[in-house]
Amino acid sequence: MPPTPRYISSHFEPHTTQASSSKTSSSGYGSSNDVKKAISELSSSLEHGQVDTDPDNLRTFGSSENSYHPASPHAVIVRPKSTDDVVKVVNISRKYRVPITAYSGATSLEGHFSGFPTGSICLDMSGMDQILHINEADSDLICQSGTRWEDVNQTLAQKGIPLFFPLDPGPGATIGGMIGTGCSGTNAVRYGTAKAEWFLNVTAVLPNGEVIKTRRRARKSSAGFDTTKLFIGAEGTLGIITEVTLRLAPLLPTKVAMAQFPDVHHAVSAVQEILNSPYGAHIQCVELLDDNMMSAINAAGLVDKPFPTEDTLFFKIQGDDAGVRLTSDVVKQIVRRHGGSKFAFAATDRAAEEMWENRKYALMSSLAAHPGSRCWTTDVCVPVSRLPQLVYETKEDLKQAALRSTIVGHVGDGNFHALILFDNDDELDAVSAAVHRLVHRAIALDGTCTGEHGVGVGKKEYLVDELGEGTVELMRSIKKAIDPLNLFNPGKLYPDDSSKDSKSH
Amino acid sequence: MPPTPRYISSHFEPHTTQASSSKTSSSGYGSSNDVKKAISELSSSLEHGQVDTDPDNLRTFGSSENSYHPASPHAVIVRPKSTDDVVKVVNISRKYRVPITAYSGATSLEGHFSGFPTGSICLDMSGMDQILHINEADSDLICQSGTRWEDVNQTLAQKGIPLFFPLDPGPGATIGGMIGTGCSGTNAVRYGTAKAEWFLNVTAVLPNGEVIKTRRRARKSSAGFDTTKLFIGAEGTLGIITEVTLRLAPLLPTKVAMAQFPDVHHAVSAVQEILNSPYGAHIQCVELLDDNMMSAINAAGLVDKPFPTEDTLFFKIQGDDAGVRLTSDVVKQIVRRHGGSKFAFAATDRAAEEMWENRKYALMSSLAAHPGSRCWTTDVCVPVSRLPQLVYETKEDLKQAALRSTIVGHVGDGNFHALILFDNDDELDAVSAAVHRLVHRAIALDGTCTGEHGVGVGKKEYLVDELGEGTVELMRSIKKAIDPLNLFNPGKLYPDDSSKDSKSH
Repeated sequence: MPPTPRYISSHFEPHTTQASSSKTSSSGYGSSNDVKKAISELSSSLEHGQVDTDPDNLRTFGSSENSYHPASPHAVIVRPKSTDDVVKVVNISRKYRVPITAYSGATSLEGHFSGFPTGSICLDMSGMDQILHINEADSDLICQSGTRWEDVNQTLAQKGIPLFFPLDPGPGATIGGMIGTGCSGTNAVRYGTAKAEWFLNVTAVLPNGEVIKTRRRARKSSAGFDTTKLFIGAEGTLGIITEVTLRLAPLLPTKVAMAQFPDVHHAVSAVQEILNSPYGAHIQCVELLDDNMMSAINAAGLVDKPFPTEDTLFFKIQGDDAGVRLTSDVVKQIVRRHGGSKFAFAATDRAAEEMWENRKYALMSSLAAHPGSRCWTTDVCVPVSRLPQLVYETKEDLKQAALRSTIVGHVGDGNFHALILFDNDDELDAVSAAVHRLVHRAIALDGTCTGEHGVGVGKKEYLVDELGEGTVELMRSIKKAIDPLNLFNPGKLYPDDSSKDSKSH
Repeated sequence: MPPTPRYISSHFEPHTTQASSSKTSSSGYGSSNDVKKAISELSSSLEHGQVDTDPDNLRTFGSSENSYHPASPHAVIVRPKSTDDVVKVVNISRKYRVPITAYSGATSLEGHFSGFPTGSICLDMSGMDQILHINEADSDLICQSGTRWEDVNQTLAQKGIPLFFPLDPGPGATIGGMIGTGCSGTNAVRYGTAKAEWFLNVTAVLPNGEVIKTRRRARKSSAGFDTTKLFIGAEGTLGIITEVTLRLAPLLPTKVAMAQFPDVHHAVSAVQEILNSPYGAHIQCVELLDDNMMSAINAAGLVDKPFPTEDTLFFKIQGDDAGVRLTSDVVKQIVRRHGGSKFAFAATDRAAEEMWENRKYALMSSLAAHPGSRCWTTDVCVPVSRLPQLVYETKEDLKQAALRSTIVGHVGDGNFHALILFDNDDELDAVSAAVHRLVHRAIALDGTCTGEHGVGVGKKEYLVDELGEGTVELMRSIKKAIDPLNLFNPGKLYPDDSSKDSKSH
């Protein structure tokens, strides 16, 4: 049975009906009148310019142009300047029972920051973007949560501090959003993800208005379970992050190289052998771009000379000169042994940057190669040995469905993104159905519905399938314990509680 | 004001009084009659030999010979063979309101597995020690939670699989205990701790008897917040872990080396420079042993030739031959620049093993060097730059208190252990007070009361100081949501709730 297209939402319907009511709804959320009172109190509690009800902005901040999930405009946008401001907003949200959704880089793809139909407060954290302190001797840095990861690294570079923050999700993402999404990126094969140990602590405002700091600045602690980790991947449903201590890594010289393969299976075998060799720690990134993606890069016209349109691995090799040279020799040999060809370094730093940008801006290349098309980006992750099967079956499936797509993958982690193009709403139906099949294929291979993009509204229907009702119920219990009024980003992450639904019938 | 000696416990007093009552106590725990009924039902539900009420065993399993915290014997020891057995025990525990404490390697140092005075079920997981599946292609392994980490690595070696599990806490620790404690060890400087990404998923029995698996086998997932992490460092208070998927790392050739330093400050500066160099990734371990520890190793008489009795760094350098050689050259130069001397490799594999064992068995050497003495081992962790100050002040403090001690530190992480010797109960008072001062010193330096040993009963009084009331209350809220009857390892980890106490007066 084909799935209900997910961009035609049924998630919010009960609330949508209640939104027009002027009384407090049975869901416990404030009425439209309460929302008005909340906005008025926000305006009197904060400074001029911090509270925004411009209808265009409310729409823009409530939806993403790169996702096709249900979206509603917010009722108001608030721009805090401090943790204290956030506490004020949270307390007003609670007083009037108006949901609150954190927003910052707006790069997420699964509807994480869409508005809530009864009226919601959009908390735009992007102005809280100050780097507060750099502890070079301890390789850590304290910043506000609206800071972009690129700005962290640029600031360190400008100050001549040879350290960097290794999580590298989409361009424009901010630290708070990266925590909420449980992000990773191309460096994860070497440095792990947001769920590793790069966030030493967070300062968070809880739904009860309390400000907590989850840990001190030591690199390790066994003082109880890891409350920092609660907020990583929680998509703003458990707390609003305002400040963060980041652990930094030494910035090492890198070289960029690429090689072509007869197929994905050969490319993946080569990657596994390389990573398990004594040279594996020199591999900072290894990215798979399929033949279609290479073709899109060429068609986008952003390269001096077209690349071969074959399944390709991009490598970033790091370390001292001798280490990079030795690693390259070994990679070259392993690549050849697995049928790869044309292993070649970018000749200059400029060429390396260009080569890497083609990977990093895959979405833009895919769109540039198909003017007028739109693109649905999705990600799944499976045990690495199952990646080839997943890629083959997905490519075959997309071909059967007559859909154009490109594939880019963090191949060392078994994580891949399909960028599926479409021109009209009929095709959008087909794309949605294909994504649905892709997710079920990944779960059947002992994988996950999302390796790094998060759940938002787009993936929540898959969580019970993937994790089982018990694990999802555990998440819900924690959510209820921390946010009993369900005010923090409701309608995201947690699947609808079917047992509760059936009770209410 | 000197602290109340912590080994004279007041933690359990209210319950101790109730233990003699034959009615259900006001704490909600079962009466002694309920405990009897629970034991009877355990005996009829499980096989002969799985239920043990031998008084000597009940005492032995309820206390640790290397910790001096409050301890009570258990009421019964149960030895499950499967997750189903654990579910049975948990359901009986809930039916009769008898607390349940998980036990396995018994290597923890803060009273994690001591019995509960009203009578508790000790769940001895050490028999659930099977390695169930090795996925070499994906570098992961599925095992039961009673498996020792050393057995994981030995099994891989015996099968000729060039992978290993990098967390290396005390000898004899098991996977379940390592999760409960949030352990790390000497490899953490290269591979991170239990709170990184080495546990891909856990299967846990929750207090409600439900069996959940926290995640599938993909290396990465952003499908919600990280429920695996909830159990890491929770000390068996949120669930009983029965099965685990471990991520493995490539096993690399290593060399062991050591160097002496004029003082700790110079040693720490050298470590920071080495780790931030392009060769840092080749440093698998870097351990600090103070002059007293070196002297104890010599006195223990386990070495062929005595070591110099100066503050010493032990290195484990890993990688390909050329990488190890280049790294060694760089380490040697940096060591010299920071006043270090005699940088020397162990000449043979046998010598390397001996050198490293002196580090790994520090506790035993400390005791062997002082026949008849006992030893209180404690650990704290601070930002690395503050480690020298912490070590100096602690050594001075111990000297003032006329206490003999040795210090070993995971210096790359800012984590150190003080092993404080004593001969009688008067000295024990002084040791307890010195540990108290050490913990406050670490917290004042933005550190933690425990880097890797965990909280148990020994460190729980420090959590509010370290983390603030809000963060501790967040932990308590989660505990209450998952274990509303407080049956899983009560009296451990969470500080007594002062607000509740005052309410009950």
